Amino acid sequence: MINVAVLGYGTVGSGVVEVIETNKKDIERKIGASIEVKYILDLRDFPGDPYESKVIHDYDQIINDPDISIVCETMGGLEPAYTFTQKALSKGISVCTSNKELVAAHGPELIHLAQSNKCNYMFEASVGGGIPIIRPMNSALTAEHIDSVMGILNGTTNYILTRMDEDGADFADALKEAQDLGYAEKDPTADVEGYDISRKIAILSSLVCGHYVNYEDIYTEGITRITADDIKYARKMGKTIKLLAISSENEDGYFAMVAPFLVGREHPLYMVREAFNAIFIHGNTLDDTMYYGRGAGKLPTASAVVADVVDCARHIGKCITILWDDEKVQLTDADKYKCSYFVRVSADNRDKAEAAFEITDTVDAGVDGEFAFVTEVMDNTAFEAAAVKCGGVITRIRMI
Amino acid sequence: MINVAVLGYGTVGSGVVEVIETNKKDIERKIGASIEVKYILDLRDFPGDPYESKVIHDYDQIINDPDISIVCETMGGLEPAYTFTQKALSKGISVCTSNKELVAAHGPELIHLAQSNKCNYMFEASVGGGIPIIRPMNSALTAEHIDSVMGILNGTTNYILTRMDEDGADFADALKEAQDLGYAEKDPTADVEGYDISRKIAILSSLVCGHYVNYEDIYTEGITRITADDIKYARKMGKTIKLLAISSENEDGYFAMVAPFLVGREHPLYMVREAFNAIFIHGNTLDDTMYYGRGAGKLPTASAVVADVVDCARHIGKCITILWDDEKVQLTDADKYKCSYFVRVSADNRDKAEAAFEITDTVDAGVDGEFAFVTEVMDNTAFEAAAVKCGGVITRIRMI
Repeated sequence: MINVAVLGYGTVGSGVVEVIETNKKDIERKIGASIEVKYILDLRDFPGDPYESKVIHDYDQIINDPDISIVCETMGGLEPAYTFTQKALSKGISVCTSNKELVAAHGPELIHLAQSNKCNYMFEASVGGGIPIIRPMNSALTAEHIDSVMGILNGTTNYILTRMDEDGADFADALKEAQDLGYAEKDPTADVEGYDISRKIAILSSLVCGHYVNYEDIYTEGITRITADDIKYARKMGKTIKLLAISSENEDGYFAMVAPFLVGREHPLYMVREAFNAIFIHGNTLDDTMYYGRGAGKLPTASAVVADVVDCARHIGKCITILWDDEKVQLTDADKYKCSYFVRVSADNRDKAEAAFEITDTVDAGVDGEFAFVTEVMDNTAFEAAAVKCGGVITRIRMI
Repeated sequence: MINVAVLGYGTVGSGVVEVIETNKKDIERKIGASIEVKYILDLRDFPGDPYESKVIHDYDQIINDPDISIVCETMGGLEPAYTFTQKALSKGISVCTSNKELVAAHGPELIHLAQSNKCNYMFEASVGGGIPIIRPMNSALTAEHIDSVMGILNGTTNYILTRMDEDGADFADALKEAQDLGYAEKDPTADVEGYDISRKIAILSSLVCGHYVNYEDIYTEGITRITADDIKYARKMGKTIKLLAISSENEDGYFAMVAPFLVGREHPLYMVREAFNAIFIHGNTLDDTMYYGRGAGKLPTASAVVADVVDCARHIGKCITILWDDEKVQLTDADKYKCSYFVRVSADNRDKAEAAFEITDTVDAGVDGEFAFVTEVMDNTAFEAAAVKCGGVITRIRMI
């Protein structure tokens, strides 16, 4: 019998209970033992909830119960999640989490603590919601030298960009629609400014190199400046705009960035619509692989947490290999990242732009008073210098 | 030190040696031990080959060497691969294979044999080439009740259909191009008639239900009857034709089929082009996930075999959970599978067709003397009865 405690009875936590109850037969077949949610820790009471009797308020009751072998930490935020996780792991209780903030901030330390206590710290749900991505990286792509990761890692912004692309909506209207549908929070800053994604790509980058990539070091640009006119140009070019997280190895080390990119119709990421996510991983012998699915949402995220529970249940007393130490990675300078740029300037500055940039293509999307073009491949330092020479740009979007 | 023997020094076998040599540092970091290819078994000699000295001709030398803990079976075909695999597993030597024929025919028995001898029989490379799909199903989607699997599982036919779609080529010309490029074999029957795919979907279906699905029981239709005119109609509808393998649970049990389908632009499988493969898996709480990558080719397939080697090396003396027993699954009748059909009839038979079918849409792709339409959702028995009433059809393609 595997006894589980769920910390935090919010969206994901209640999803974990629901997935375990709904799929109990499948899960027990896969574990080879029965499974039970014994406790649900929350500050609140839930009168009338079918699992009301399992709700407790004292964490010590969980870690002092020798029956508990696995804890699901679905509280989010750094504290008290961090302290609770440390306490459980110190006692040899495995922790499965959806908490990307905590994993991005203290992943290596918590993995080490788990290993020292012959238990596991698992975080499949922290990146890509229900998409299996952490487990494929740790246990499937093991014959590869992974040299780049690129993905759509946030459902909210992808929903907004899909609405802008398909309906010609402006950012503000698309955001409002996303909020009305529950895809975006009242304060959407963490999503639309890319902060959520920077934590996720920090975790993936860390797993690629095995060391610690700090999300605060990652150049991050959100989607708040994308306009309906940008989308018009994108469509004219047969492309769409996606907020991408990219991470790659180069001759000087590792690089990571979060920014809007123009993605062409021939690229598999083009068709990732609405609240779906997808992650591209490139290996030196495998070439491209992609993992696609629901990057957020109660049940998909909970399913990923419960998959970690199954893995922990199959490995009681044994450590699952996760290579991630606390050696800090110095990321290479984002200004050196090379790509083509799509650029819009005032029509008055056309001559200057033609002198300042090597232009490979021009685009006419019927927007008056503008000159729009695609540059050669260049780094951001060179781009900024040229932009000054042509009297400033209306917008610039990177291209993959 | 992990010592490996490779059986068969053909395309995949030589790829396995190349992947291990190329990525030795990465692989050893992931195993936590050094790795060496000690023997390569082949009937032939390879004078001048850099690994010439490892080539041997006597299998007993491998299984009688106590240093060997893992064998890579990349011979293909049933014999002698079957006997060699049995001998290795009986001695507690794990076997990693790319051999879908053998897995589809004897998977449950060989898994059981491995478990009885505290070793592992692994077959990631048998489906989807380099795409991690077996491992996600066995160890990542473990919280799910998987209710359907659908995929493009053959690179040759997908390449041919991509050429037909993009260049308007006829089947024979596209096949010739695929043969010239090495994507199709001289005798392309196993690929173009769908036999290769039926083995792969049999393996995936078996893993979904945990029992044995015999590939010979799967209704299988290839792509040899697809014409340039069919493609014209598909394009007119904003769709493309893909050879899909589908497998799903229904109220009467399980169902599987291999057949060409019309796939719309909004579907993620639409953009799977050339020799790429993709597999869609639907779970009851996770919704859709998709896995995409190179479904064939020397190095991608070899990378999947070596990922199995890493897994075996991490589990020496322990069994990795694979739930697949030999209880035979009785598949439900393919004639009962319901879908819309795209149908072409002679223009002379238009009145009869309109009387025989409930038509939901008509299509004009500029092909003279024809009437083309889309039917309501119906099963194949009803379709065949209606087809007779309208004087026979020129072509019919299922739609998803």
